[in-house]
Amino acid sequence: MRFTSEQRLDDGVLEREFTLGEIPGIMWTPGSASAPVPLILLGHPGGLRTMYPRLVARALHCAAQGFAAATIELPGSGDRPRSAVAEQARADLQGAVRAGRPVDDEIVDRLVLPLVDTAAPEWRAALDALLALPEIGGPVGYAGGVISIGIRLAVVEPRISAALLFAGSFVPRALFDEARQVTIPLLVLLQWDDEGNDRQQALDLFDAFGSEEKTLHANMGGHTGVPRFEGDAGNQFFVRHLT
Amino acid sequence: MRFTSEQRLDDGVLEREFTLGEIPGIMWTPGSASAPVPLILLGHPGGLRTMYPRLVARALHCAAQGFAAATIELPGSGDRPRSAVAEQARADLQGAVRAGRPVDDEIVDRLVLPLVDTAAPEWRAALDALLALPEIGGPVGYAGGVISIGIRLAVVEPRISAALLFAGSFVPRALFDEARQVTIPLLVLLQWDDEGNDRQQALDLFDAFGSEEKTLHANMGGHTGVPRFEGDAGNQFFVRHLT
Repeated sequence: MRFTSEQRLDDGVLEREFTLGEIPGIMWTPGSASAPVPLILLGHPGGLRTMYPRLVARALHCAAQGFAAATIELPGSGDRPRSAVAEQARADLQGAVRAGRPVDDEIVDRLVLPLVDTAAPEWRAALDALLALPEIGGPVGYAGGVISIGIRLAVVEPRISAALLFAGSFVPRALFDEARQVTIPLLVLLQWDDEGNDRQQALDLFDAFGSEEKTLHANMGGHTGVPRFEGDAGNQFFVRHLT
Repeated sequence: MRFTSEQRLDDGVLEREFTLGEIPGIMWTPGSASAPVPLILLGHPGGLRTMYPRLVARALHCAAQGFAAATIELPGSGDRPRSAVAEQARADLQGAVRAGRPVDDEIVDRLVLPLVDTAAPEWRAALDALLALPEIGGPVGYAGGVISIGIRLAVVEPRISAALLFAGSFVPRALFDEARQVTIPLLVLLQWDDEGNDRQQALDLFDAFGSEEKTLHANMGGHTGVPRFEGDAGNQFFVRHLT
């Protein structure tokens, strides 16, 4: 892990860009922290530059609660090399959506399963590097999409103690089976009128999770319309489980 | 409105029992309040004595946030005279549930519609009396079940600015139509595994509400298993809308 730049943001939050091998990432640490702090991994759909405004807003919200936050670029997104298989699957999916056809499970599997298989070990490697830093103490939470990556990490990564997941569509059936194996506390956010999201599938997925403590927060509005107060609700969720 | 007893509880909260005509009620005001405070009406399924432990816990939670709270007995419950029609409807409903039969809409209408028609004006009269007290300033929220009474009040009582509703079954179809007329901010609590509650009906009702801001919080567990942290979430909801 190599830091490539740093700057101070509001409230003294330190933002540092890094690379982990070929993977770019960003981490944020609270300005006031004297002891090692818990860490929130910020999931996203890929494209750090495009996602930066939303990621930094969430990171500042985490920092205000005394949490560090970190994220890495997804395989095939941003400045990382494209995968021909994934690009074809994405084109097939978008073609089906534009034509108003149902999206075949086969297309979803072809797009999402390799992404999850590649990304999950990368996030675990990032976690190794982040937890080796003296300013990061753990415990660790995961917050955001891609929900399939969040599910995989919740199953395979015992250092993740709680997860806040954004309900999204195009979840492979195999990930529903993995969802049943999740046991950590979950907060699932669902945008009730998300035009690109199958509401019933999201409710079925919430039902499938094996966690004894799982909470669904459904709000009005489309995909990017998550209300501001859910930021506070997310912090309170992580305060309950990481402190 | 006539106060019949008073006692100081934890944190100096003042609990006063009152009668409003023949209707018994209880109100709680924060110990520290110097200016008039907002008011939360605490809904419940009937039976003030039985419900008291849960009501006082919710009232103390409200008071900790600087809110007054008040509740009245429902018609046909507690020490109030029984209605032969309601008792028969309740027996028919319980008979159907015990026999594992679906509960006819006709039974639900017979049980719930007269209850709503009688209770809603009583709660409005209580609101008149409570808002006339110098220590109560408004605005006003409604929190609890019976959800059908909450829906009716949200439609007909303009002094109620926000409502936290407990999803319950046996909602008459007519109340679904009224739900579409609700426009105040809502927080709806759903117990996902509530044995006596039809989950899909609760989701359909949430969908029906006309409010631009409505949030669903679904948690694991049965009817009385609402997690403690939802008390904080409820306070934050009312802080957003009543202060």
